[in-house]
Amino acid sequence: MLLNRFFNPRSIAIVGVSENPKKVGHLVAKNMIDQGYDKKLYFVHPSGATILGIQTYKDLNDIGTSIDLVVLAVPAKVAVSTLDSIHKVGCTNVVMFAAGFRETKTKEGDELEKQLLEKAKQYNISLLGPNCIGCINTNNGLNATFFNTIPDRGNISIISQSGALGSAMLDYYAVKTHLGISHFVSLGNKSVINESDCLSYLVTDKTTNAIGMYLEDVKDGEIFIETLSEVTKTKPVVILKSGRTSEGSNAAMSHTGSMVGDDEVFSAAIRKAGAIRADSFAEFQMLLTLFSLDAVPTNRNLLVLSNAGGMGVLLADEIVKQKLQLVTVSESTSEELKHAFEDTKKITIHNPIDLLGDASAFDYKKAIDLTMKEKDIGGVIVLLTPQANTEIIETAHVLQKIYRLLKFKPVYPIFMGKKSVSEAHTFFEKEGIASFRYFAALPQALSKMIDAQEVKAQKISEKSISDFSIALSTHKYDIEAVLSENEMKPFLNQYDSLKLLEWAGIPTGKIFHATSISNLQTIVEQEGFPLVAKIASDKITHKTEIKGVITGITVMEELENAFHSLESVSEKGSGCYVQKEYAGHELIVGAKKDATFGTVVLVGIGGVYAELLHEIMQFVYPFTYSQFIHGVKNSKLNALTKDFRGSPPLNICKLYEIALSVGSLFDRHKQIAEIDINPLIVSGDVLTAVDGRVILQK
Amino acid sequence: MLLNRFFNPRSIAIVGVSENPKKVGHLVAKNMIDQGYDKKLYFVHPSGATILGIQTYKDLNDIGTSIDLVVLAVPAKVAVSTLDSIHKVGCTNVVMFAAGFRETKTKEGDELEKQLLEKAKQYNISLLGPNCIGCINTNNGLNATFFNTIPDRGNISIISQSGALGSAMLDYYAVKTHLGISHFVSLGNKSVINESDCLSYLVTDKTTNAIGMYLEDVKDGEIFIETLSEVTKTKPVVILKSGRTSEGSNAAMSHTGSMVGDDEVFSAAIRKAGAIRADSFAEFQMLLTLFSLDAVPTNRNLLVLSNAGGMGVLLADEIVKQKLQLVTVSESTSEELKHAFEDTKKITIHNPIDLLGDASAFDYKKAIDLTMKEKDIGGVIVLLTPQANTEIIETAHVLQKIYRLLKFKPVYPIFMGKKSVSEAHTFFEKEGIASFRYFAALPQALSKMIDAQEVKAQKISEKSISDFSIALSTHKYDIEAVLSENEMKPFLNQYDSLKLLEWAGIPTGKIFHATSISNLQTIVEQEGFPLVAKIASDKITHKTEIKGVITGITVMEELENAFHSLESVSEKGSGCYVQKEYAGHELIVGAKKDATFGTVVLVGIGGVYAELLHEIMQFVYPFTYSQFIHGVKNSKLNALTKDFRGSPPLNICKLYEIALSVGSLFDRHKQIAEIDINPLIVSGDVLTAVDGRVILQK
Repeated sequence: MLLNRFFNPRSIAIVGVSENPKKVGHLVAKNMIDQGYDKKLYFVHPSGATILGIQTYKDLNDIGTSIDLVVLAVPAKVAVSTLDSIHKVGCTNVVMFAAGFRETKTKEGDELEKQLLEKAKQYNISLLGPNCIGCINTNNGLNATFFNTIPDRGNISIISQSGALGSAMLDYYAVKTHLGISHFVSLGNKSVINESDCLSYLVTDKTTNAIGMYLEDVKDGEIFIETLSEVTKTKPVVILKSGRTSEGSNAAMSHTGSMVGDDEVFSAAIRKAGAIRADSFAEFQMLLTLFSLDAVPTNRNLLVLSNAGGMGVLLADEIVKQKLQLVTVSESTSEELKHAFEDTKKITIHNPIDLLGDASAFDYKKAIDLTMKEKDIGGVIVLLTPQANTEIIETAHVLQKIYRLLKFKPVYPIFMGKKSVSEAHTFFEKEGIASFRYFAALPQALSKMIDAQEVKAQKISEKSISDFSIALSTHKYDIEAVLSENEMKPFLNQYDSLKLLEWAGIPTGKIFHATSISNLQTIVEQEGFPLVAKIASDKITHKTEIKGVITGITVMEELENAFHSLESVSEKGSGCYVQKEYAGHELIVGAKKDATFGTVVLVGIGGVYAELLHEIMQFVYPFTYSQFIHGVKNSKLNALTKDFRGSPPLNICKLYEIALSVGSLFDRHKQIAEIDINPLIVSGDVLTAVDGRVILQK
Repeated sequence: MLLNRFFNPRSIAIVGVSENPKKVGHLVAKNMIDQGYDKKLYFVHPSGATILGIQTYKDLNDIGTSIDLVVLAVPAKVAVSTLDSIHKVGCTNVVMFAAGFRETKTKEGDELEKQLLEKAKQYNISLLGPNCIGCINTNNGLNATFFNTIPDRGNISIISQSGALGSAMLDYYAVKTHLGISHFVSLGNKSVINESDCLSYLVTDKTTNAIGMYLEDVKDGEIFIETLSEVTKTKPVVILKSGRTSEGSNAAMSHTGSMVGDDEVFSAAIRKAGAIRADSFAEFQMLLTLFSLDAVPTNRNLLVLSNAGGMGVLLADEIVKQKLQLVTVSESTSEELKHAFEDTKKITIHNPIDLLGDASAFDYKKAIDLTMKEKDIGGVIVLLTPQANTEIIETAHVLQKIYRLLKFKPVYPIFMGKKSVSEAHTFFEKEGIASFRYFAALPQALSKMIDAQEVKAQKISEKSISDFSIALSTHKYDIEAVLSENEMKPFLNQYDSLKLLEWAGIPTGKIFHATSISNLQTIVEQEGFPLVAKIASDKITHKTEIKGVITGITVMEELENAFHSLESVSEKGSGCYVQKEYAGHELIVGAKKDATFGTVVLVGIGGVYAELLHEIMQFVYPFTYSQFIHGVKNSKLNALTKDFRGSPPLNICKLYEIALSVGSLFDRHKQIAEIDINPLIVSGDVLTAVDGRVILQK
């Protein structure tokens, strides 16, 4: 849906303009005038009276010229029927404020929304809302909202599923002279125009440098991710979303499936697309401010200068916690610093560099000048607390000059306190520099910005997924056959499950079905010891809970005992499964379907505590090797890729191939409801699925 | 050390008063006048000139009357020698600003500090500093600091190891009319007066309602915890501490020991004492504000009212994440609410209660009036975003009235935005109500406040530790004998380690040392199968890494194979250990010594991933059952206390006894450096230490 004309109309008609200053029809008309919309603006009111100094038309039809956008400030039923008139005058762009549709969760509401959708489709209308607060484009003075604030121009665009969020944001920007709005869109019910449509428009909008989205759900996951991926190539996108929806998601049957809620999949999906998820409204605002002011760190190495030792250490703690690094200055610079300050005092040249409580503006300048030539500084944080002789405003001026010089090394002033630092903060605002009164939230925001940059860099130099061998296709027929045979069952038995995984190109532990004692000898001759015996049953999924697995079998007698014992808990004649015992760490790999984003692959730490510890990553299928690596690096699994307690490092490339194969198997066969490999035993280059479960659609 | 006279002197002499307005000696003299110290104030300056309108004395001796407090604004060496004169005039309270002591990490500095300490001891002087910013008591106008702010009176007292933190706090309170300072103390080098001394004084100070501490280290851990425990009985204490020190701590030898840094022990210790650890400077400030204004939630149930659906859900997410609960209103109240609003609109009566974007001040009043009679509401959060017709200041007035009425149910107004809500925030300040512009940080702060209350409640109704049976004493002699025999070794072998644990009252798996094949038969006859065989070696600690443990032995042949195999990796004739195999979850329990707080007991999730997952709790010994329960409830271990994957619930009382016994064993025998039970196998009521290691002091 192309929204260029929608947001840049050459003429606007507001239907339902009112004289009552509390009514939406008054507020929107006033906002449009106050925002300075300077093209053709028409008001429609049955009386034909003059409102806000403009002669109204009694009917849309009376206007007589073409109209690019109609704003409907009338109740729901009237609004829907007005679509006919709108169509008649040849307009295809509509903003509809009215509530009373699907969101009421009533029969009448649903019915009305259905009518609305039909008309919109029939007339090919791009409709914003209903049940929304409207939209703003400050560049042309379009303000089709009933907010109580007229925002200043700026480079931040906001797409919001909550009007209230918009009102809080605009109210905040109203006092921030260095920040302003390019576009604001309240999505409402998203009946026609949705978040992806707005993103597609904003990517081409030259006045938008940073996009903020507040979402409660996503209309079409695949299109959303595709659009988002495209947008983040050129513009940062920060998303705030409530996590509540996961409560409503259905319980999954597999171990891995039940461990991941929809909300975590949302995080994985947007991370893959290069967007940033804000944890809170405050962080949302901070990230948009940083992007708007182009205060983007160039890498993870931060230099910290401070006049407050203790505060500097607290800040350093937070930096390290957020996977950022503190620059260690070179020895030569360290010597220069010592020399520069030796006449006056002893500064501490660890990072943070402590200039002590009596640091003057000149001291800050001297220290920054000397350290800035260090390589690979991604940003400079300057911490100041107002002490006895602290030159607050002078230091602000020093930093402003440095900020201008160091275009590619952003400077983040943190001037703590309130009364005596206010002037400095106002100065920074005037100069378009993001400054802070507290430091705790900044490192996390900077870390997220760099994460997103890394995803962006990966998208450019990406190894193609097709470079990885997925053996699935050749066995397609066999897989289909097994799935058809079992279509009435809730899941495949373990034997069949492992077969399917093997055909999908996943290394699996060879599994034997011993139906008699005499079978056991043959198996031992072929496989040797140690062996594992497992219950052979089509019914039992969580085997360890009923002692359905006997491990560490090293002699014949033990194997025979295991056979009898397992048959006794299953059923007479069922025998047991026998498998070679693999040594290594236990992982779990699975796949499930997310209602919004489709196939999701899960990789995590296995074993008996898996559910308890919940160390699991989600990847929306398909996913690239870099995306996979990025996920692993940020999880506890990362420890296994190095020497861990004497085990060889896990071959992460092979793990990626397995995860991708599981995703591919799941994605191609819609009969499969969930896949669960638990455990996948890993030992260096050897990765083996020893237990698997394929759960089928009901 | 009694500091009553120190903070309430009847006369003060400032030595080193200066005419230069940038000098400390000028700033402190001016601060003392500006703060309004109205008792006898003397200035000492060699010239005898008049400074700041006060005639100075050439020498301390010249003053001629008794002096309760001397403030030394002179350089380090002069300051130390002045202690003699101070003694001569009979004064025993001193504030010393000078730097140049131990903190310089030079020989001269150390030497000077030694002299200082000697004199202070000899003259029985209570000395604050050196290398400090001084102290304030707003109640009597004592301001012996060189800050650039004169704080207003209030009920917050701050003890800080960083002057800069103090300056930032005072600067913040300077614009907050509803908040003020009772005492401020900059600790500096803590050579004489330390944090515990200040706490002991503040507990009796009637003007202090909330205490904030910034600490980098603690002087005497045991005294500190004891004092802190006493203070928190009547006054909340919020502590901010940097976590960096853990980097410097020595690597421990045991699994459990190496998993916990000093900083985590600090957290455990102050939690035990009922204090709250703030995660950031912002949270530190927020907690002190809430305590100062007595905005303390009475329990975990919060009611949320909002005019912004989306924001309300985000807030609810955060509330649930922080282990708080959302009140669900009763059906009758729900009906009343529906009825009250039915003429105007459809509000959503889930929690959060969404009053919709057009909520008037009267709507807020109506909704709160109707819901307040619900039982067990611990606090009410009222979220407001400035929308088209929002009655912002009117709503603030409504909340103020309700706040006064509901003395024991605090109301937390969150008025989002900036421009249009500023008036309301100023109004709340004037009324002494804590209000907020963002909501993300509030739930965590409230949750921590309730945690501390729970600890306080526990301290009152506490089951005594002596109620638990610790069998240690009877075996004291045996334990000493084993420790003496092995004193040259780095650790006890497994056999001896388990024996020690058993004598300490810990249920251990019986361990047999089989030195020949013929031994094995006897063991099997006695214990039956399944068995575990382990390497018998005095050298190897981390057995699993070298395959020193063979599990799941169920037949004789397998046991013999294990014997040969284990002997081959150890040494000829060493044999192997044999133990019954226990089924259950693997935990780890250990003890180590913390440099500040002494014996620390560690309890966590065991198994091969233990170090990777780092799910471990610390308890400073001794600890009560309630403290233990509280720790477990807030860890992932809590899942094991319920039905978990078919296992019976872990007997947490027995786990407590074991943890306490380990602590007791460690605490009584100073030859022990670390204790490590890994694993402790738990299955319902059966808890068994199957592998243990006692590491000895070098």
